Amino acid sequence: MYLEKINGPEDVKKLSGGELNILAEEMRSALLQKLSKRGGHFGPNFGFVEATIALHYVFNSPIDKIVYDISHQSYGHKMLTGRKDAFLYEEHYGDVSGFTNPKESEHDFFTVGHTSTSVSLASGLAKARDLKREKGNVIAVIGDGSLSGGEALEGLDFASELESNFIIIVNDNDMSIAENHGGLYKNLKALRESNGECPCNLFKAMSLDYIYVAEGNNIEKLIEAFHQVKDSTHPVVVHINTVKGKGYTFAEKNKEDWHWHMPFNIETGESTRNFTGESYSTLTCDFLMKKMKEDPTVTMITAGIPTSMGFTEDKRKEAGKQFVDVGIAEEHAVAFASGIAANGGKPIFATHSSFIQRTYDQMSQDLCINGNAATLLISTASIYGMSDVTHLGIFDIPLISNIPNMVYLAPTCKEEYLAMLDWSIEQNQHPVAIRIPCNGVISTGANIKFDYSQLNQYEVKQTGNRIAILALGDFYQLGEQVAEAIKIQIGEMPTLINPRYITGIDAKLLESLKANHEAVITLEDGILDGGFGEKIARFYGSSDMKVYNYGFRKEFIDRYKVEEVLKANRLTPEQIVEDVVINR
Amino acid sequence: MYLEKINGPEDVKKLSGGELNILAEEMRSALLQKLSKRGGHFGPNFGFVEATIALHYVFNSPIDKIVYDISHQSYGHKMLTGRKDAFLYEEHYGDVSGFTNPKESEHDFFTVGHTSTSVSLASGLAKARDLKREKGNVIAVIGDGSLSGGEALEGLDFASELESNFIIIVNDNDMSIAENHGGLYKNLKALRESNGECPCNLFKAMSLDYIYVAEGNNIEKLIEAFHQVKDSTHPVVVHINTVKGKGYTFAEKNKEDWHWHMPFNIETGESTRNFTGESYSTLTCDFLMKKMKEDPTVTMITAGIPTSMGFTEDKRKEAGKQFVDVGIAEEHAVAFASGIAANGGKPIFATHSSFIQRTYDQMSQDLCINGNAATLLISTASIYGMSDVTHLGIFDIPLISNIPNMVYLAPTCKEEYLAMLDWSIEQNQHPVAIRIPCNGVISTGANIKFDYSQLNQYEVKQTGNRIAILALGDFYQLGEQVAEAIKIQIGEMPTLINPRYITGIDAKLLESLKANHEAVITLEDGILDGGFGEKIARFYGSSDMKVYNYGFRKEFIDRYKVEEVLKANRLTPEQIVEDVVINR
Repeated sequence: MYLEKINGPEDVKKLSGGELNILAEEMRSALLQKLSKRGGHFGPNFGFVEATIALHYVFNSPIDKIVYDISHQSYGHKMLTGRKDAFLYEEHYGDVSGFTNPKESEHDFFTVGHTSTSVSLASGLAKARDLKREKGNVIAVIGDGSLSGGEALEGLDFASELESNFIIIVNDNDMSIAENHGGLYKNLKALRESNGECPCNLFKAMSLDYIYVAEGNNIEKLIEAFHQVKDSTHPVVVHINTVKGKGYTFAEKNKEDWHWHMPFNIETGESTRNFTGESYSTLTCDFLMKKMKEDPTVTMITAGIPTSMGFTEDKRKEAGKQFVDVGIAEEHAVAFASGIAANGGKPIFATHSSFIQRTYDQMSQDLCINGNAATLLISTASIYGMSDVTHLGIFDIPLISNIPNMVYLAPTCKEEYLAMLDWSIEQNQHPVAIRIPCNGVISTGANIKFDYSQLNQYEVKQTGNRIAILALGDFYQLGEQVAEAIKIQIGEMPTLINPRYITGIDAKLLESLKANHEAVITLEDGILDGGFGEKIARFYGSSDMKVYNYGFRKEFIDRYKVEEVLKANRLTPEQIVEDVVINR
Repeated sequence: MYLEKINGPEDVKKLSGGELNILAEEMRSALLQKLSKRGGHFGPNFGFVEATIALHYVFNSPIDKIVYDISHQSYGHKMLTGRKDAFLYEEHYGDVSGFTNPKESEHDFFTVGHTSTSVSLASGLAKARDLKREKGNVIAVIGDGSLSGGEALEGLDFASELESNFIIIVNDNDMSIAENHGGLYKNLKALRESNGECPCNLFKAMSLDYIYVAEGNNIEKLIEAFHQVKDSTHPVVVHINTVKGKGYTFAEKNKEDWHWHMPFNIETGESTRNFTGESYSTLTCDFLMKKMKEDPTVTMITAGIPTSMGFTEDKRKEAGKQFVDVGIAEEHAVAFASGIAANGGKPIFATHSSFIQRTYDQMSQDLCINGNAATLLISTASIYGMSDVTHLGIFDIPLISNIPNMVYLAPTCKEEYLAMLDWSIEQNQHPVAIRIPCNGVISTGANIKFDYSQLNQYEVKQTGNRIAILALGDFYQLGEQVAEAIKIQIGEMPTLINPRYITGIDAKLLESLKANHEAVITLEDGILDGGFGEKIARFYGSSDMKVYNYGFRKEFIDRYKVEEVLKANRLTPEQIVEDVVINR
């Protein structure tokens, strides 16, 4: 086996053409084994095996620097840069992360997990190289799906200004996570169909030099192309046409399902883990499909991740013009939603907590200054969300809740979520964001009639004494546990409150608590800094009320275990009782 | 005079070709008078007079909806849509804002002041029109300078997906605020030089239909072009070549100086108000020029507003390759800076508080997760900054300071600013942002030797009793006044502290204050929600220390008077003494 002997790019360079092809098959085989057991990004990695080999064959990493966009296609790179064991041996599967990471290897230059960043990041490496009067190639790899993102387009536009060596590999597999959306993809198609000869060329329109490689899974052709651009003295795009999921029939056939895949049976392609029961994505999709049928102005918008809200291909088709996937373009999505609302439509834009970060200015300027009634659904906004450092869901409260005019709601159960969603779609006064619970679908059976237009009215779920607990969103159930634990400890039931609104204070209620409470506990599933609890601490700052804020420390955590993070932040009921009751 | 009789677009349609040309001259004359007295956006408005007339001649606003990007070119539109008095009569000059505003007129659809948003916002209007099965044209106007912004490029890429009426007027005057930067501008040039015939065409590469108008200041030609695209059943770009500052020699000659201009003498073009003395922009520029000469890896980066940091044309030339204006592309700027730092360079990116909003995800993902030592300079971050609702400088503390790994510094005087800037450039451990003071250049003569690597160490400026004041950044001087006022009231000097760091707590110092203080006052030049003071309130939440947070309410304010806003937020020394000492 060749792969076993690859300890770095220098070992790739020793192989002959035929051996490189065998190496490619070995890499695919290792990927297939590992991903079938652990899950992960499938399609992009399978499609980029040959290009990875060719890159390391032609260039001299780490003197030549390769930056992978979003790094969904970097597993092969990891295999060839001293990290093969993490793909060959099950006991080492956990040794590497799913993204590039400078702490893992000198061949990785950035920790990357969001799309559309490679061209800008790599252009900075190139600029520093030039300032230091050093040599070497800088290579940005970017997938076609990532090209629609504003940062990528800004970077492409800027690249020609470098006027020095800079190589952009466009890995075009004619797919985003789902199908591509946007006019530029017709240009990529025209380029593919004309063997790169089509005179109208997005990259040339950005003043970049350009070459095309039709056989993007042919190592020999790729080596030839990379040799051609190596040591180029000006920026150049190498547009390569690859097959997403290449080499595994199921993945080649159903590219969307196999972009990322959970563990599966290699023979049948069937998932070995099955999630049954309700999820907030199917609940949301079902609810919105119904709303769309009742009202032709209800429009669901996603930005490249339609299935994360249950909008599979058939649902998208069924929704027709009332479903819009804008591609990876969150900024556009929010401004577009604001425009729809301004003209009397009812837009809903859904994305992950980590990706809503890409559109702060649009939330503030395009949406909230204008007070347009669009609905934003924020998913995986929780410590129970994605645990990679680049996809954390614990920063959206400071991000969203401090924008004036925004109403950010935190439902505590399924019924409350749907009531809030329904209200938000039907009202026309406020920009609204809803923080979808992430601790499983908890159904209380409640029949909720509350009018959420009465902003910032908290709900007292249980009236008690001495201590009041403000338990926000999906930490409400933790609040129930804390209440129980306190009751056991002090023999008296504390007050339990569902704040409902992240964006405002129920001053009247908080004021009234002073009469028979000495302490308030706040619980939130996000970082404490800039969050909900601090607003409560400010409110009570000059009073005698003691305030205990619980949430997470402001830090980037990576591949964590939820239970450990909760403990480290003193977020178990026992720890809270200890702090607030026993040791106070 | 025709202009006096224009009460709405219907009056424009009554005029003959010759009369329209006279109207254009009258509009320019009114603009010249008003801007010479009040200042404002000059170049873009002068260049877009003819297009504005042609738009209102051909289309039927407000059924046909025109959305102006950034709305720097909307003064003419205001004149023709019932708001001429605000340009004709000095006593009415203040009646309208400098930006489009739905509260002013049914012909305005959004309050807009940031660039690159019109295509996305307008595409939302078009989508809602289609969902409602209504008719009418939707027109997005966008300047060439705004095209480099990620949101604009995302919007252009998306537009073709509308598959219905959508008209994008590209107002190409071959200038951003300063000269344009980016590869796409070479394509615009090629299009201009080929009368729109050049086969490589950015807009066609985005799958948009396209027509070109060489004489963008010729009403007749514009009317012809607009008639051609009116009621188009698919998205189309009308690329018009206009002259920025058209009709006023000084403005045509020196386009950068006349993009926005303060009041001036019409005959000589000379400013009638002169700012003399030091400013933080010239101080910064001088300091950085010196640093650049000492170290070839120091790089100054701006995003379309180079002179706001003193980098006038001659300074830019002098800095050479160590100065980079990326054009309007803040996302790219931050990622680019991170890349430079990752490869051993010393990048500084400067922009306004309001514009740093455009790059939250890049600060978080590209910069702070990677811990790269780039310096961000945040200007006009203050109630003393720009007072238009779209340019407020009071939201950056919640935005920036809650990102892990970021070190956000708040200097209180010139010497401290330069010490922090110097430290930030020379260290290689932390992403750093510096909040440039905005209350005038205050020189204390201090010789600062502090090593800012000792994160979160606050400076006790004066040791006192009972009350401690944490006075952040340019509210430090307010802190001094409050301290004096308290001393007079209670006969005892309070403790006065310069926190220096917005991003962290000096737990040791705060703990020590408990010994002989009963209350802490925090002062910050920003909104309270998610801000600095709330962190202090959280720290003391469960203790007996009383905390009083002072700053601004979370709201969008517009064209305000600073003194009034300070009073409304109880931010005068008298009010603070009243709250904290007299009425507590």
